[in-house]
Parts: sequence; structure tokens; C-alpha cells
Amino acid sequence: MEIIKNYIENNKDRFLDELFDLIRIPSISAKPENQLDMARATEYIKESLLNAGADHAEVISTSGHPVVYGERIVDPAKPTVLVYGHYDVQPADPLELWDSPPFEPEVRDGKIYARGADDDKGQMFMQVKAFELMVKTGTLPCNVKFMIEGEEEIGSPSLKQFCVDHKEKLSADVILISDTTMIAQDIASITVGLRGLSYMEVEVTGPNRDLHSGLYGGAVMNPANALAKMIASLTDENNHITIKGFYDDVQEVNEAERNEMAKAPFNLEEYKESIGVNEVVGEKGFSTRERTGIRPSLDVNGIWSGYTEEGAKTVLPSKAWAKISMRLVPNQKSKKIDRLFEEHFKSIAPEGITVNVKSLHGGEGYVSPIDSVAYKAASLACEESFGKKPIPVRSGGSIPIVSDFEEVLGIKSILLGFGLDSDAIHSPNENYPLFNFYKGIETIPLFFNNFAELKK
Amino acid sequence: MEIIKNYIENNKDRFLDELFDLIRIPSISAKPENQLDMARATEYIKESLLNAGADHAEVISTSGHPVVYGERIVDPAKPTVLVYGHYDVQPADPLELWDSPPFEPEVRDGKIYARGADDDKGQMFMQVKAFELMVKTGTLPCNVKFMIEGEEEIGSPSLKQFCVDHKEKLSADVILISDTTMIAQDIASITVGLRGLSYMEVEVTGPNRDLHSGLYGGAVMNPANALAKMIASLTDENNHITIKGFYDDVQEVNEAERNEMAKAPFNLEEYKESIGVNEVVGEKGFSTRERTGIRPSLDVNGIWSGYTEEGAKTVLPSKAWAKISMRLVPNQKSKKIDRLFEEHFKSIAPEGITVNVKSLHGGEGYVSPIDSVAYKAASLACEESFGKKPIPVRSGGSIPIVSDFEEVLGIKSILLGFGLDSDAIHSPNENYPLFNFYKGIETIPLFFNNFAELKK
Repeated sequence: MEIIKNYIENNKDRFLDELFDLIRIPSISAKPENQLDMARATEYIKESLLNAGADHAEVISTSGHPVVYGERIVDPAKPTVLVYGHYDVQPADPLELWDSPPFEPEVRDGKIYARGADDDKGQMFMQVKAFELMVKTGTLPCNVKFMIEGEEEIGSPSLKQFCVDHKEKLSADVILISDTTMIAQDIASITVGLRGLSYMEVEVTGPNRDLHSGLYGGAVMNPANALAKMIASLTDENNHITIKGFYDDVQEVNEAERNEMAKAPFNLEEYKESIGVNEVVGEKGFSTRERTGIRPSLDVNGIWSGYTEEGAKTVLPSKAWAKISMRLVPNQKSKKIDRLFEEHFKSIAPEGITVNVKSLHGGEGYVSPIDSVAYKAASLACEESFGKKPIPVRSGGSIPIVSDFEEVLGIKSILLGFGLDSDAIHSPNENYPLFNFYKGIETIPLFFNNFAELKK
Repeated sequence: MEIIKNYIENNKDRFLDELFDLIRIPSISAKPENQLDMARATEYIKESLLNAGADHAEVISTSGHPVVYGERIVDPAKPTVLVYGHYDVQPADPLELWDSPPFEPEVRDGKIYARGADDDKGQMFMQVKAFELMVKTGTLPCNVKFMIEGEEEIGSPSLKQFCVDHKEKLSADVILISDTTMIAQDIASITVGLRGLSYMEVEVTGPNRDLHSGLYGGAVMNPANALAKMIASLTDENNHITIKGFYDDVQEVNEAERNEMAKAPFNLEEYKESIGVNEVVGEKGFSTRERTGIRPSLDVNGIWSGYTEEGAKTVLPSKAWAKISMRLVPNQKSKKIDRLFEEHFKSIAPEGITVNVKSLHGGEGYVSPIDSVAYKAASLACEESFGKKPIPVRSGGSIPIVSDFEEVLGIKSILLGFGLDSDAIHSPNENYPLFNFYKGIETIPLFFNNFAELKK
């Protein structure tokens, strides 16, 4: 522990400088105009891995954005930890809501402000620096592999095939991922559940061109009004999703487990205050934590139609669009939900309207066992660095690839994340506290040590 | 008639060139960046009026965009026709749907394609050229005044005060307006009714920042979902508007008048085909023509929230917006409807949501008598140029200033328009057939002649 703390203390400014250089590369996977930045980010990470002590590192192409692979094999007989992370980030808009430029990281009040500061550049880079620490201090207790992808924010469309193609190379005893949150800075937690995702885009068409809303208004179905009606009908007065068959495969969580979950610290008033709402709203019969942890949800992520600039344009639009995503719980299958959504959405189109539905991305939920060697190693590591036992939590987020890893590679993942709910990931002013960044670099070598010990 | 036809034949290319020069000025009243273009358009029209034969023309400032005024007083004892039109146009977006640039007019298949080709540069310029024709051929039978404004497309916020300030200068026996449509190229019509307008913008706020839709989805009211529910509830299953008190002042049209209206030629199949819909949809119990002619309506003119670009962003947006307008029938007052809308919309906000409502513009409906001298003069003029009697129709559109003219100036308007429903005004590929442009220039002097005769 002394060794770890000293190494961090002596290198903390350099760690930050290096992270900042990575953050300055706007590697937005969703945007075609950032292709070159994606390539720059892969090179930067490859070099970082080599500098940290990898025997070997390479950028491996896929049918989409490439994966950075690196490894240090100390002894084939020893256990192997495969670190997963991603170098791509979400788009930064709406830009005008950022207090500082999203790709020019800045430390304010002890937090790094930038797109990717947490998700996932900040958290992934902790893994790289923890690896460096173990190599340079001669404390690396087992083999390490890195698989850092560039498509997490768009649903990892190429990574499953990448795993199929490189199964041998990726063989390991556990996958270690830092891409989740803890409950609070003084309450470590380990994520043991993730939700799946079905992300759809719908296009609703009325007349074949934009019409004058005076000459035609009242006589023609307006696709924006129709889309509003269709979206409105997707949830009922109890905030239950009305898509036929949607809940069929939902794994109900029993009373005992719900009671156990309810023991995790949670302050509803602080929660409401942190996001500025007077009231929380969700599925009837479930608590706020349950609504994100064990229940599916449906959200409009984007909607647009007609005239959206300044002033008044009296147009009856030809088309209206929405991006609608559903978070799924374990046992719901995203492909099936895609199909149910499409069938249902088409079935509720009013007269005078045609509908197109496409799936933009999706993935399955995940539940992780808490009696595994990896969980124990992570739990012990947190106890050593935070001074108390971490709490297992089910997160509302999705890392669809985690269930693919299990299916293709046959390896379980351990979700040891150091983010906070207040980090505003995917939002303007994304941030990551320096405390969490350095605490992660401190905790990760402890995990490696415990894992190697327990595996003996 | 011979004189008119000859003058048009000898000057038709020049008429078109001059109109094209006017169209090339992108005088979009709604957009601050087109301020300079607004000024250029006023100068162009002032010069056109002077060249056509006005004794006097000037650009008169208002609290908004200026008005171009011009006059030719042949004899104070003779009647006076006040021509009203507007030089401002609607925004041209979505630009990508235009087959040719909106401000580079082009003739294809006998039609002028450009923003403003019909509404109202094309129609207003017919008035200027008809005036020139009468002056140059020595056939102008009465006094003429012009009032060409620049705020029609944003609801004429300054024109009522302009009328108050210049009441004396604007004194006339009738106001002549070409800013409406005819039924078809071979079926002239005179617009005897217009709808009023209430145009609102709503802002719906949920959490205080964009959230991650995984971490929060299901536990927080999403303002885009909420807005969809709120809009959906504004109309019921009979396409009746649900705003409390909305229909209180609606002037019901009696059975006899409805039967009379039903005699106007109308082909529903052609109508549906022209706008590419399988079914027309509107208020139960009324025909398509009635739905736009004598019934109010409610349309979403624009809606926007969250992520609207390519790809998938898993955001739970902080805010959602919509532009929602209502067309009103005579006797409904737009200010009252603004208030009813705001009260109702705020009352239906779900928990966890705050709502802002503002009025962007509005105006009253209008009904014109068909036994007036002006109507008779216009009817006769159409009969002479089209070879058959025109049909009086109630249009679904709004020219809110028409009821203001009556209130402030005490002058009735005659709506002698030459557009077609297929001209796609306010839409991409707005167009105006050359036939209609020249037919208008031919018919207007006949109106002047009949009006002066009948007034004797």
C-alpha cells in the first residue's frame, strides 16, 4: 500500500497531463467527421500501453472502429486479467451549455471538466496507470491484457465479432471494467447488474411535403401531432409500458432481494435536489432505485419535426422523427423487444400516417454473481482503500458487451467503477473528481493482488 | 381588354425579370440575419412603384420592419383603391428539399420556382405591374395607394399601429389584396373568409440538465415524453380540441350556408393525391372544405428535444419545446385563445415538469360580404378574364391584418388572389405558374375599371 501511494504521489501530475492529452482528442464514435480523431486516439492508447510496460500492443481493425489490444505476460501459468474499456465518447452537444470547452479539459473545484473525463477515458486511463504502477514497482502479480474499443457509445456493433475472431488472444480468467459508478465518494460499490438496451428511431410521414398550416390545418393528419399521440400511448397512467408483450420476459425480483437492495444508502431529497426536480416519477409500485435497477424503462432521447428556429413559421410538416430507447432488465432480449416495439408502433399509427422504424442499437442486461473470486477480490480491494466494505448495486445503465463477453468468450466481468452519479456523463459539463481518479489508480493494484492470491 | 393583352404581351419578359430581381433578395422577416435584405427589398419596391407611375413613394419606418407606401392621385373626387401586399417571405428551410435554390428563381414546366414566387412577391408584384399598365396606357380610372409591409409572415406586429398613425394617408374606399388562392386555373374564386391565428411556443422542463438515460431512465419524468402526452391530450378521438372554453365563441355555420358551400367544385381524390395521403383526417362531422373553411384547428408547427443528429445518444433531455398554432374562425378572439391555451397547457403538466408558454403571434378571422361593390367589381373582372363567374370561398389561411384594417381604418378588403393550392407556399419548391402571374395582371385592371364604374 505504501508503494502504491508513493508512486501515485510522485507521478500524479504526469498522470493528469497524459489523460488530458487523450481527452483533447475528440473521439466521438457517432460522428463521421471525427474518423481521424478515432485513429489518433487508438495510437495514443497503444503508445500509452507500451510506455506503461506492455510487451506488445497493436491497433486491430474491425468492421467499424478499431480495438487497441495490449498485453504483458509475466508467466503463462499465472492467472490473467483482461481489462476492457473504451476510447470513444458521446457527442458533446448542446455545446452552449458547457461552462468550458468539452475537449479542453480544465480542473475546477477538484474536478476534471471535459467530455470523456469520466466516461470512459478517465476511468479507462486509471487502468493504464495502475498497470504502469504495478510494472514499474515490480508488483504486477499476474498476466494482463487490454481490450480498449471505440464503439461503446454507439452500441459496440463490431466488438462481438472481434471477440469471435480473437477468442484465443483474449483468453483470461476475468474481465475487469471501470465504466460504472459508486454510490458516493466515501461509499464504494461494485456494480452487479446492468440493464439491456433497445434504441429505436422512428419516422412518421403525413403529407408528401410541408404544407401551409392555414390552408390545410384541420383537414390533414399532422405527423408531429400523430407522433405525440403515438409516443404518449407507449406508457399508461401508472408509467407502465404498453407495448404488447413487453413485460413477458422481465425477471421479477423477489421480496427478500428487494428488501436487501433497499438497505443501500439513498437519500431521495438529495437525489431530487441534484437533478433539480420537485417530484420523481416512475413505474407505480417501485422505488426510485428499483425503477432504474430492476425495472425496464422507455425514454424519448430525441424528437424533431417542422420549424424549430426563432420565430413563427406556419407549417404543417411532412415528417416527424423520434429516437426512443428502452432499458431492459436481465432475461429481456433486445432483438425481441426491437421486434415488439416495431410491430406495436406500426399498429398504433393513425389514419393518414405511414411509419418507418429502425433499430439503432441494442444489447442485453447482465447480472453478476457476488460469490465469485473476482467479486471477493474487488470487495477486499475497496475495503483496503476506502476503509469499508463496498455495496453491491444494480445500475440502470447498459454495457451491452458484458453479456456478449460471457456468451462468446465464456468469461465473467467484474464492474469496478469509480464514477459518481453527479459526473454528468453524456451531459454538458461532464466531470470526474481528481479524488476518484487517483483512488481508482490506488484500488486497482489491490484488486490484482487479491485476485492473484485468491486464485492460487 | 385589347389594350391590356397587348401591353402584357409586349412587356412580359421584363415583368418577369423585375420580379426575379425582387425574389433574389432573401427578405425573411423572421430571421435577424436578413435585416439588410429587408431594407434592400423596400428600396426595390419603392423604385418599382415610382417607375410604374406613382406620384410619390416612400419607405416608412415602424417599430419593426418598414412599410413601403406609394400613391398616384388622379382626382381627389374619384374613388381610391388601397393595395395591400407584403415583401417579406417565410424561411426557406428545410433547404435540402428544394430542387433549385430558393432565392434563385427558375422557370420549369411553366412555373416560377422560388421562395416568395407566389406568397406574396409574385402576387404583390402583379399589382405593381397592373398599376404600371393602367398608367402607361392611360386607363387608370381612379386613385391608387400602396401599402406593402414586411411583417406578414411573422403576424404583422407593427402594422396595426402603422394604420393608427397614418389613418389619413391610408384613407380609401376599398383595400385590394392578392395573397390568396383560386380553386383551379380555370375556376377563379374570391376569398370571402379567413381564419384567425393563435401561435404559441411552449417550453417543458424536467431535470436541470441532460441526464444519462440508463442511470436515470424510469425514475425521472422525461420532458420529451411529457410534452408528447400533453400535445396528445389537446385533441380527442374525434379530432375535437380539448382546451377548456376553446369552442365557446365559435360561430356555427347554418345548414343552408353549409349546403351552399358544398356546391363549390372539390375533388377529394385529387386533393388526397396532390398531398400524397391515403386518408384525410379531421374534426368528426365536417367535410374537408369545412374543416379548413369554417372550423378551427390545432397543429404542431415544430417540436424539438434531445439528440436529433445521426446515431444514438442515450440522453434523457432536460427540456423539450414545441411551436403549436391554432387557426380560429370568425368571432373567436386570438388573445382570449392565447390565454385559454396557456391556462390549459399549464394545467395538464404532469408531476416533475415545469412549463413555460409564450404567444408568438396572432390575429382575428374575417368574413367579407358578397353583396358589396368591391365583390361585384371583382366578380365581374374574373368573369371577363376567365370567362366564367368566380366562386366565393372561405380559406383556411389567415391574414390577421384584414380584420385590423376594418377596425382601425374602417375599410373592407377584397381578397382577389391568383395562387393555387399546389403552389406549395411556406414549403420547399414554392412555385407560381406563369399563367396565373399574367392572368392576375390582366384581371386587376378590369377590377379597377369595374370598381370605378360601379362607384359612380
